[in-house]
Amino acid sequence: MPLEAIDDPFVTSEIAGRVVDIKDVGGGVFEARIALATETIGGEAGQLINMLFGNTSIHDDVLLHDVAFPAELVRTFEGPRHGIESLRRRVGAQRRALTCSALKPQGLPAHALAALAIALARGGIDYVKDDHGLADQSYSPFAARIEAIASALRRHGSLTRYIPSLSGDLDSMREQIAAARNVGIDTVMVAPMIAGLSNFHRLVREHPGIAFLAHPSLAGSRIAPPLLFGKIFRMLGADAVVFPNHGGRFGYSPETCRALARTALADWHGLRTSVPVPAGGMSTDRVREMLDFYGADIMLLIGGGLLSARERLTDVTAAFVEAVKAYPYG
Amino acid sequence: MPLEAIDDPFVTSEIAGRVVDIKDVGGGVFEARIALATETIGGEAGQLINMLFGNTSIHDDVLLHDVAFPAELVRTFEGPRHGIESLRRRVGAQRRALTCSALKPQGLPAHALAALAIALARGGIDYVKDDHGLADQSYSPFAARIEAIASALRRHGSLTRYIPSLSGDLDSMREQIAAARNVGIDTVMVAPMIAGLSNFHRLVREHPGIAFLAHPSLAGSRIAPPLLFGKIFRMLGADAVVFPNHGGRFGYSPETCRALARTALADWHGLRTSVPVPAGGMSTDRVREMLDFYGADIMLLIGGGLLSARERLTDVTAAFVEAVKAYPYG
Repeated sequence: MPLEAIDDPFVTSEIAGRVVDIKDVGGGVFEARIALATETIGGEAGQLINMLFGNTSIHDDVLLHDVAFPAELVRTFEGPRHGIESLRRRVGAQRRALTCSALKPQGLPAHALAALAIALARGGIDYVKDDHGLADQSYSPFAARIEAIASALRRHGSLTRYIPSLSGDLDSMREQIAAARNVGIDTVMVAPMIAGLSNFHRLVREHPGIAFLAHPSLAGSRIAPPLLFGKIFRMLGADAVVFPNHGGRFGYSPETCRALARTALADWHGLRTSVPVPAGGMSTDRVREMLDFYGADIMLLIGGGLLSARERLTDVTAAFVEAVKAYPYG
Repeated sequence: MPLEAIDDPFVTSEIAGRVVDIKDVGGGVFEARIALATETIGGEAGQLINMLFGNTSIHDDVLLHDVAFPAELVRTFEGPRHGIESLRRRVGAQRRALTCSALKPQGLPAHALAALAIALARGGIDYVKDDHGLADQSYSPFAARIEAIASALRRHGSLTRYIPSLSGDLDSMREQIAAARNVGIDTVMVAPMIAGLSNFHRLVREHPGIAFLAHPSLAGSRIAPPLLFGKIFRMLGADAVVFPNHGGRFGYSPETCRALARTALADWHGLRTSVPVPAGGMSTDRVREMLDFYGADIMLLIGGGLLSARERLTDVTAAFVEAVKAYPYG
């Protein structure tokens, strides 16, 4: 909007964005600080991202690096309801890192995924999540899948918690949560960038007993991960944030990962923390290094690295779990 | 998922993605063709984008260039319900390009936005849309805004149609559509990447009488625009797609814009077309060039370029409308 087209002094002084500073940081890159009015957000998560990186996302030479949110705005969104102590309590863990694996590949029927869950549970894993590719496909429909996996874990009698992946529109995700609660599930996974931030936020607020794991699918690379995962997903209520660890299949640097985890765990206007869940091509031989790097307030997720063991899945899972438990926490 | 971890022959042969071809196209760029199974989508728009560009979106050196969708999949999503002939009929236009402007800046109260709408209507504009920054803010709440603008246009007696911008979660957008219908509105705007593709698709299917304009906010730059706007948004039901024209504030090339418009208007498995709406820093002196470039099946959107005229808004609007009507359509 050309400024000269605005003839309302309230808009010019209180609403129009303002360039606060432009700094040449070298190499053709400039850091621009822009002040936006909180009122433009209308207290709503979709409009928040619309203001922060809506049309600007279309400029392929612009990154959204960070946002300094006012305290009241952060508190309006309320943040996570559970946080790491609750996620530990659910699986009987003391002050140590949590362990997680993934059910895949998609294409398997529900009973085969349930068999994988049991093999992982026998190895003592804390959490077993759906691969984010599992949705509501004909080969393992959501309802049949969660029933098969939850009842298998119940029969097995372990503390292992199953985290199904939600998909579809807001109503579908609500129905999936209702079905999950019916079989005793209290933790779910959502990809907020696919669901829409508003719908993710709504689900969190409507389901106080459910813990939410946020998945990075469609998160792209142009909103800085510490901001998107550590601030925005956390502000909207992610109890844990899955992200690609450095040195795996994805391109995040160690610095990005450290900044992401620190942001998600930082004291921030009274919000609960989001548990960092580094993932993506991890393996048991990296456990010690990852715990040195991230500290104890973390969930370690190894999917394919365990599943590759096939008939030895329980054994390699037990070795992973043991490595996490044996770490000398300070 | 490591392939060696898969021991189910159905998954290996029917479900696992397959690299069909990798071509070195020069300059360090490779074109990879990957075959995915339709079953993985489960007939659902969010899962569609999850499969196409979910985790891959996190790789900052990968673009999603194009997708060859099977005919049945395209037909499952059903596409637009209205298309250009319906959008023309609503405003009494014959075979010519349509005209559109935008109400902004945000921060104005509802009555001031209504006054702008009337000034544009006096100039003979076909459609007046909310700027996509207008949501449900305190200075012009959605309900008050649409009531003020719709009733002002009704009193004025013009054919000009008002297109409010929807925001929030699926329920909020449904309530906004219901409120809009109550005041006689039959066309709305949604930013599908903010709403979530599943929710956009759901809204379209639930509201057969409403025409939907898709806005590019948060669309980024890593899914090729002809694919995202011309195929995906169209498949999900966008009757018109707003996109940044070349030579304006954004970086799309003429080739990208041409490919986008051609894709949106192409014969495609029996779907109605999506009307291209090039925008973003346009002006009346480009009307002729744009019509030469895009042809007649288009909606031209000039926002700030008209609003900058302030007290001469009706006059410059009339000149824009006249330029569009005077073009020698073939």
